[in-house]
Amino acid sequence: MTAEETVTAFIAACERADIDAAIALVADDIHYENIGMNVIEGAAATREFLGPFLTSCDEIEWVVHHQVADDRVVMNERTDRFRKGDRWAGIHLMGVFVVEDGRITEWRDFFDVPAAVEQLGALG
Amino acid sequence: MTAEETVTAFIAACERADIDAAIALVADDIHYENIGMNVIEGAAATREFLGPFLTSCDEIEWVVHHQVADDRVVMNERTDRFRKGDRWAGIHLMGVFVVEDGRITEWRDFFDVPAAVEQLGALG
Repeated sequence: MTAEETVTAFIAACERADIDAAIALVADDIHYENIGMNVIEGAAATREFLGPFLTSCDEIEWVVHHQVADDRVVMNERTDRFRKGDRWAGIHLMGVFVVEDGRITEWRDFFDVPAAVEQLGALG
Repeated sequence: MTAEETVTAFIAACERADIDAAIALVADDIHYENIGMNVIEGAAATREFLGPFLTSCDEIEWVVHHQVADDRVVMNERTDRFRKGDRWAGIHLMGVFVVEDGRITEWRDFFDVPAAVEQLGALG
């Protein structure tokens, strides 16, 4: 898989809330950061953070507006959408992924933190 | 110039606070947005917003950590640094640029807005 294919598969796994498939695509020592919000070190902590959140949603859709990549770095502009019941939250963001040997070693998402907190808080 | 060369030249112009050179690289109808902070429509409004800010700084450095591009879209992860007197502000961000016919038609920067406001406010 190319770096871009790895990220595309990772996003698809997140959309299915398939945390096992998602974690299979990250390095044991992944550095994952939501800039201004939290820093998560390692695959186990990533599973602990992402898993319960993804499975608490009724529907997940990460709309990729633009994506560009080279053989190691993938960047995209997305709107990450999460539904609980009849409420949708949407976060407009950019993400950068560094991929080595088919695994994501770095992942940083950048967004307006207060807007995201408000969106997610309104999901209940 | 490729799309990436256009963005690299634009960033270099901003670092020199050369607003004429910067504006020469944007489309008349550029859509420029600091996500969660402001939306600026058009080259004239971009000049009005960027010019006074850039020339008010004593030194400007936009450190590009990663950059990837295709023939139309350029994305980068940067730390934009601004100095006034002996104080530096630094904003860790991601930007996306859409380039058409050698001009930037869309530019969006994503960052933790409160952190950026605090950094810039501390410059005085």
